[in-house]
Amino acid sequence: MDALEAIPATAVKPGPAPVSVERASVDKGPGPDASVERLFDLAATDMAAVDALIRDRLQSPVALIPALAEHLISAGGKRLRPLLTVAAGRLCGARGDGHLKLAASVEFIHTATLLHDDVVDGSSLRRGKTAAHLIWGGASSVLVGDFLFARAFELMVETGSLRSLQILAQASRVIAEGEVLQLTRAHDLNLNQDTYLEIIRGKTAELFAAAAEAGAVVSGVSDRKVAALNDYGMKLGLAFQLTDDALDYGGASEVLGKNAGDDFREGKVTLPLLLAIERTRASERGFWERVIDRRDQTDDDFARAVALVIQSGALAATLDLAQRYAEEAKAALQVFELSDWRASLETLADFAVSRAA
Amino acid sequence: MDALEAIPATAVKPGPAPVSVERASVDKGPGPDASVERLFDLAATDMAAVDALIRDRLQSPVALIPALAEHLISAGGKRLRPLLTVAAGRLCGARGDGHLKLAASVEFIHTATLLHDDVVDGSSLRRGKTAAHLIWGGASSVLVGDFLFARAFELMVETGSLRSLQILAQASRVIAEGEVLQLTRAHDLNLNQDTYLEIIRGKTAELFAAAAEAGAVVSGVSDRKVAALNDYGMKLGLAFQLTDDALDYGGASEVLGKNAGDDFREGKVTLPLLLAIERTRASERGFWERVIDRRDQTDDDFARAVALVIQSGALAATLDLAQRYAEEAKAALQVFELSDWRASLETLADFAVSRAA
Repeated sequence: MDALEAIPATAVKPGPAPVSVERASVDKGPGPDASVERLFDLAATDMAAVDALIRDRLQSPVALIPALAEHLISAGGKRLRPLLTVAAGRLCGARGDGHLKLAASVEFIHTATLLHDDVVDGSSLRRGKTAAHLIWGGASSVLVGDFLFARAFELMVETGSLRSLQILAQASRVIAEGEVLQLTRAHDLNLNQDTYLEIIRGKTAELFAAAAEAGAVVSGVSDRKVAALNDYGMKLGLAFQLTDDALDYGGASEVLGKNAGDDFREGKVTLPLLLAIERTRASERGFWERVIDRRDQTDDDFARAVALVIQSGALAATLDLAQRYAEEAKAALQVFELSDWRASLETLADFAVSRAA
Repeated sequence: MDALEAIPATAVKPGPAPVSVERASVDKGPGPDASVERLFDLAATDMAAVDALIRDRLQSPVALIPALAEHLISAGGKRLRPLLTVAAGRLCGARGDGHLKLAASVEFIHTATLLHDDVVDGSSLRRGKTAAHLIWGGASSVLVGDFLFARAFELMVETGSLRSLQILAQASRVIAEGEVLQLTRAHDLNLNQDTYLEIIRGKTAELFAAAAEAGAVVSGVSDRKVAALNDYGMKLGLAFQLTDDALDYGGASEVLGKNAGDDFREGKVTLPLLLAIERTRASERGFWERVIDRRDQTDDDFARAVALVIQSGALAATLDLAQRYAEEAKAALQVFELSDWRASLETLADFAVSRAA
């Protein structure tokens, strides 16, 4: 989930922004960044309310809790998941503050999983800052994650929407399953594409799907529209994660928010690597066994892996699949009338993949 | 929370038991163990259903999850918290399976906190078995804890009781706050009694209170009875934890389920120690600073600490306070008509403290 934290700053406007400047930059041209800015623009008031809610509800009489949570939450991140809830809600005619509370809940669930993941992976950086567990210790990160998770459910209860609670409880469970699956299978040279897709569905796409679906549910639209937004979120999440996994084999670090090659150096098998291994197994078996199975790597090995990932067509195949999911995400929105919200969500799907261009 | 896992086996009958033998043992006399057996007897059918629900809902296509969860759950433990939900529900005329689903949810929340606590504390034993994180790794324990927590909320949603969800979400949040408070304050020679009580309320008593309250809520009784069961659970939890903390300075290991002295050796300040430090600060300052502040202990230090805890009256004061809470727990039940359920819950409160006799 790491690189998803690092959409370039131009696309990241979680708080209220100087609107005239924003609109001017949108007018400049139809590039994907401008389109995503349009979405953040449309959602600016709602997202400011979500931000206020987040800051209010991470308070606790136990001082370490807001300190640790603020460290991560104020580090930015694009708030893409709560944005999905807000946008889905507005697309479905949301009234009241239910969609805002669910958006804040989604961000709390996401932040809890980040805190736990960083402990699990022993990561040292998150959103460009020292990972919380290196400052406050792993124990604090685990427990503050638990706090945020519980807070998310308290907020959901306030909406009175049992169906939203069901959606987000189930998503939280599937995320944990995806993380465990990654933990036990992602370092396996024989990982197949189905299991890989199951992992990224669990660890990433499920929360995108639930975030969008919950926004629809709380706005009281038809089951058909609820299902469409679940489908949109799922496909969008898959497109994002596939693109991130491709970027790890050659993206610029300013797009990726981390250095390319992190997955490779961790011996984590993602689709570009998985396909490259399959396609070069005959000639490169010894190389893959050494660098992935035994994680015995030299400084030059990443360059060789990148060359194999590109030459075997694995990188192009990964981006093709990402593009297909982005198209399916857009197609899912066709049950809605044309509107600014629908158009902005469509361009978000394009942006998910075009980051890699 | 450790020692609460270790009520002696005679009092622990979570599944259906050979009823005639049970009743015979109850007839033998009015001792507290026999009384607790009566409660387990009354609840046997419900608790068997809760157990089946637990085993069903910890399943997952990701094999490591049920394996790790089963390791902990099948290790026994007395299922005291779900028993409270069941008993409170029955005392309030529960129908249907809402109280059973909430009881299973309570056990899932409790198990999740145990998994996370053991990682946080680096504990090596749990319920007499090797701690899960030493078998499957800390990462797996964190993530399976997250799975169980999410599953708990899925189960709660099935009951349709938003109020129960609110109670247990809030309890989960307060537990995390209590754990963080313990993490940051419990090794402090200057810990005061108010902060100590806040810690044990959070880490232990809050879930007892929520477990009992949720059982009442889902059974649809008056607010007065709901509040009474919350009060009962809270006071019972405090009585249990205070007694455990006292037992750590002299309980038999078969009652404690661990060796006496664990808190002391971890430098964890609980009420007996806190009071002993306050009362002997003038004469023993150097000793306390060495063994708690600097955690520089020799084999003889625990015996000296026990002597100071006893001679200063700190142990007796701790048990007095536990007894007071047990009395308050029983008093809270007076809003209910006399019944087997009420009588059994009263004796459970006595048992909480009499274990130390």
